[in-house]
Amino acid sequence: MPLSPDQLAEIAAQRATPKPTLRAVSEGMEAHLYHAHEVLDHGFVRVIDYMGDDAAIVQAARVSYGAGTKHVSNDEGLIRYLMRHWHSTPFEMCEIKLHVKLPVFVARQWIRHRTANVNEYSARYSILDREFYIPAPDQLAAQSVVNNQGRGAVLEGAEAARVLEMLKRDSNTAYDHYEAMLSETQADGSPQQGLARELARMNLPANIYTQWYWKVDLHNLFHFLRLRADPHAQYEIRVYADVICKVVADWVPIAFAAFEDYRMGGATLSSKAIDCVRRMLKGEQVTQETSGMSKGEWREFIGVVNDPA
Amino acid sequence: MPLSPDQLAEIAAQRATPKPTLRAVSEGMEAHLYHAHEVLDHGFVRVIDYMGDDAAIVQAARVSYGAGTKHVSNDEGLIRYLMRHWHSTPFEMCEIKLHVKLPVFVARQWIRHRTANVNEYSARYSILDREFYIPAPDQLAAQSVVNNQGRGAVLEGAEAARVLEMLKRDSNTAYDHYEAMLSETQADGSPQQGLARELARMNLPANIYTQWYWKVDLHNLFHFLRLRADPHAQYEIRVYADVICKVVADWVPIAFAAFEDYRMGGATLSSKAIDCVRRMLKGEQVTQETSGMSKGEWREFIGVVNDPA
Amino acid sequence: MPLSPDQLAEIAAQRATPKPTLRAVSEGMEAHLYHAHEVLDHGFVRVIDYMGDDAAIVQAARVSYGAGTKHVSNDEGLIRYLMRHWHSTPFEMCEIKLHVKLPVFVARQWIRHRTANVNEYSARYSILDREFYIPAPDQLAAQSVVNNQGRGAVLEGAEAARVLEMLKRDSNTAYDHYEAMLSETQADGSPQQGLARELARMNLPANIYTQWYWKVDLHNLFHFLRLRADPHAQYEIRVYADVICKVVADWVPIAFAAFEDYRMGGATLSSKAIDCVRRMLKGEQVTQETSGMSKGEWREFIGVVNDPA
Amino acid sequence: MPLSPDQLAEIAAQRATPKPTLRAVSEGMEAHLYHAHEVLDHGFVRVIDYMGDDAAIVQAARVSYGAGTKHVSNDEGLIRYLMRHWHSTPFEMCEIKLHVKLPVFVARQWIRHRTANVNEYSARYSILDREFYIPAPDQLAAQSVVNNQGRGAVLEGAEAARVLEMLKRDSNTAYDHYEAMLSETQADGSPQQGLARELARMNLPANIYTQWYWKVDLHNLFHFLRLRADPHAQYEIRVYADVICKVVADWVPIAFAAFEDYRMGGATLSSKAIDCVRRMLKGEQVTQETSGMSKGEWREFIGVVNDPA
Repeated sequence: MPLSPDQLAEIAAQRATPKPTLRAVSEGMEAHLYHAHEVLDHGFVRVIDYMGDDAAIVQAARVSYGAGTKHVSNDEGLIRYLMRHWHSTPFEMCEIKLHVKLPVFVARQWIRHRTANVNEYSARYSILDREFYIPAPDQLAAQSVVNNQGRGAVLEGAEAARVLEMLKRDSNTAYDHYEAMLSETQADGSPQQGLARELARMNLPANIYTQWYWKVDLHNLFHFLRLRADPHAQYEIRVYADVICKVVADWVPIAFAAFEDYRMGGATLSSKAIDCVRRMLKGEQVTQETSGMSKGEWREFIGVVNDPA
Repeated sequence: MPLSPDQLAEIAAQRATPKPTLRAVSEGMEAHLYHAHEVLDHGFVRVIDYMGDDAAIVQAARVSYGAGTKHVSNDEGLIRYLMRHWHSTPFEMCEIKLHVKLPVFVARQWIRHRTANVNEYSARYSILDREFYIPAPDQLAAQSVVNNQGRGAVLEGAEAARVLEMLKRDSNTAYDHYEAMLSETQADGSPQQGLARELARMNLPANIYTQWYWKVDLHNLFHFLRLRADPHAQYEIRVYADVICKVVADWVPIAFAAFEDYRMGGATLSSKAIDCVRRMLKGEQVTQETSGMSKGEWREFIGVVNDPA
Repeated sequence: MPLSPDQLAEIAAQRATPKPTLRAVSEGMEAHLYHAHEVLDHGFVRVIDYMGDDAAIVQAARVSYGAGTKHVSNDEGLIRYLMRHWHSTPFEMCEIKLHVKLPVFVARQWIRHRTANVNEYSARYSILDREFYIPAPDQLAAQSVVNNQGRGAVLEGAEAARVLEMLKRDSNTAYDHYEAMLSETQADGSPQQGLARELARMNLPANIYTQWYWKVDLHNLFHFLRLRADPHAQYEIRVYADVICKVVADWVPIAFAAFEDYRMGGATLSSKAIDCVRRMLKGEQVTQETSGMSKGEWREFIGVVNDPA
Repeated sequence: MPLSPDQLAEIAAQRATPKPTLRAVSEGMEAHLYHAHEVLDHGFVRVIDYMGDDAAIVQAARVSYGAGTKHVSNDEGLIRYLMRHWHSTPFEMCEIKLHVKLPVFVARQWIRHRTANVNEYSARYSILDREFYIPAPDQLAAQSVVNNQGRGAVLEGAEAARVLEMLKRDSNTAYDHYEAMLSETQADGSPQQGLARELARMNLPANIYTQWYWKVDLHNLFHFLRLRADPHAQYEIRVYADVICKVVADWVPIAFAAFEDYRMGGATLSSKAIDCVRRMLKGEQVTQETSGMSKGEWREFIGVVNDPA
């Protein structure tokens, strides 16, 4: 994903000129601004702007005149309380704006998170670049045999090679034809009209890269991260979520730690599951048959209460 | 877009069994329920469910105990008043649920309307059909020379043929390879693992058809229709909007007539444009130079005040 | 909360005339339509309309042509799976419209749930009735000594009487003056201008009743119910949530049962809490000090794992 | 609305310590940060934070690597184009966070704008101050005789005095009793339990002041301002909108000028109204009878096309 010299120069120019502000500043976030964090083979995540920090969450929860409390420990206790009790509105008081480059099939999953603002690069108006996601060999996985929407083992030698060959060749053919349809010159140099961009784009496959500006508040971002940084999420969106997790940890470290403890590392137990825990703690030997749970629920429950170590 | 015999049987079964309800019923809408209105070469729009009618708008605006007024003329006057004065909340009290089959590049425009509920057919979980949008010859248009995001003249003979050939061949090749990658059997009959569906789909171009359930309230649907049934919208989404307009006209005829008068057929004038109208009505000869408008604004303004006849 | 004879007649008229529809019909919900379920001293909840049923959730999740599966057990398994895994979009495919009469201070809590459609009775346009919420004696509670936003013991004799007397007298005085300010006639019969309604209303206290139409999808309704039917919610909104729970149980019994098991009766454990459960199941004696939790977290954790029996 | 010395000190501390940032900075907005702009008798609007500037709108519309164009004239042309053609998403890329103190009846109108984030001062948790909105004499208006939801002439002498007296006395009585109910001490010094705050607040009238943090994107803020800075909006919310207009003009001057031209100073004509303008420009004498419009529509139309001068 080499950015062009022009793009690098624009980014450098933005990073070269700090200006004074009276707003809340997150030191950890300033270090991320504009830098492109590489994701997949041509994608990236860049922080364009942010609003607020850990103290801003506290300040909003208290509707206060100043900027949070004097003591970080108080802020931390309150933030953990808010997270634990699903008080979401103070987290909505922080906002982040990202520039993301990503394959179209990832963009289609991402956009289902509706409470966000989006400006996508327009293929009606502009011409897309010849950049396609081709999975690394260790991500070229077979269909899962236990989960209808997951992956299983990594493909082996000849099959993997065949798949990669098809993906690469079809991408390139599609792009060659995209260019040929758009062109006002035929292959032999004679003139032609050139197909409308809004039509030509339909020939491009879902692994082509697009890009957008995406702006979201911290509460909705946490919701996105909980679903997309989860092991059940598709790998190609999870790697974006993982990068954003690192950025958020630097931006609002206290809120992110609470999110990790209560959401990412937490689990929701049903009333049946709570009942089983209580019986087990009293020494009862509970099985799936006596649990009242379906097989799927029981398997998930055991995954929570059993120490993997 | 031939539905399968099974699908037709399911639709027929749903249409065969009216049940009594105490809810508001729109006769015009009942006639549409479940039928597939064909759009493009393989697409459709089907009404799955609806809530409310013209009287429900009035009832909500009045927070009344009964069902609207006794006199349709009163309802009409109120609905027109609400539309004219941008009182949007009573229109939100009607809801529609559609089943839509549409090309992916159309779906990508459509989904930008965020205030709606969506369940899309999952290509992580299921296998897509071999159905691609191939434009009819009269829609195979060149890039507009005046508008960066529009179409110009229809492509002529040999160029049109080349474009159609490329679109068809690339679609079929992509789908052949999609199937080959998914398959647990190689071309020669020997076994292979089969690529995960969530990966294989990335080879499919943007003219493949997808489908979804889409649910939206009437206010937000009007907003969608104003932008997408507009002559500047891309043809391939406009034809869906046009079909939905016909459905809505049968569902809430009074509200739709007000929408046509105030939104679809209306125009917004800037303060500069209002000033020009006033000067012109007093007999002044106003030109772009004396209008204070840019060339683009002036051209749009003339389009509004000049009788095309 | 006696409805007027006119209002009762309007409701009776709506209930008297079932019409045929091809839409999904929930028998359990039809029985609720328009009836006013009484809440508090003058409030009510009335179902005005609904869209969908349990089968509609399944149908949307499958983007299917027909109406759910043939077997209720399949529907139930899928609905429970969707609820357990936070797949919220299929639940958004059901919608309900309620007419609610409620005190203003309850309305102010309620409206914080933003993903809903609302038409409120306008006190700019109309005159409010003389109806105020006066708590029943068993709800006249002291400030909690352990929870800054909760109630403690019920007030005793003389103090309770003083409070009720103040609430009643101030409500009536405020309403007397509201009428006097609005009136175009002075107390002595001589004419006056009469204050604008949009101003006079500011004299009315927060226990006056207002009413609105409120429309929401099932996913967002479940979110509302989880927070507002919770024991920590203020009693005066909880009684509304409790009534709505009963209505929803009749409307979509399978989805409601899943909601009860996974949300209402469930609990979210943090990563620290999960760690404690694992240690306890291995026989370790865990205390707050060795848990890594704060006192508040530990108290809540013990409430989950300890059998109250 | 005198802020306390503590509050002023907190504000001064925030304004005293500019920090360097790499983010977009709006000089005009920095001057507003934290200052309390007084509104009504005890209210205010304070800017707590903001994200973006005019260039950020351009940058997002172009999904660009740098920061807008080099030439302000290009930015202005694009911003005006976006506003004229209802391309709302680039304006969503700017965000503002305000601290607002306002009467409860104003807050109830304000909160109907749902696409915003809110943290309100909690009267369940805290005790409200004795601050009530009492209209200035020139705002004490009679009910309009032409508009069911508007004001007419200002009240005259004795009637105005009676109204003010009622508003003041009822506010004070209500607050005296609020305190008496909350207190753990009776008037004679003997102890009592003290009513729960969540109950006592119900005695407070709608002219008491509350406060909140309110965060919104620029597109939705423009929508709010168009409706609430409009002459038909109630005076008490309009004065807040007017103050915010001034702030926004300093924050994003180009976008605000476009908003003023196309939205605030603009008008929407129906298809019937456009037809009338065309006929009038051709010299026809059009009257309400020949216009096809209702009386109300015609009156509004004449207000647009007739020069008030």
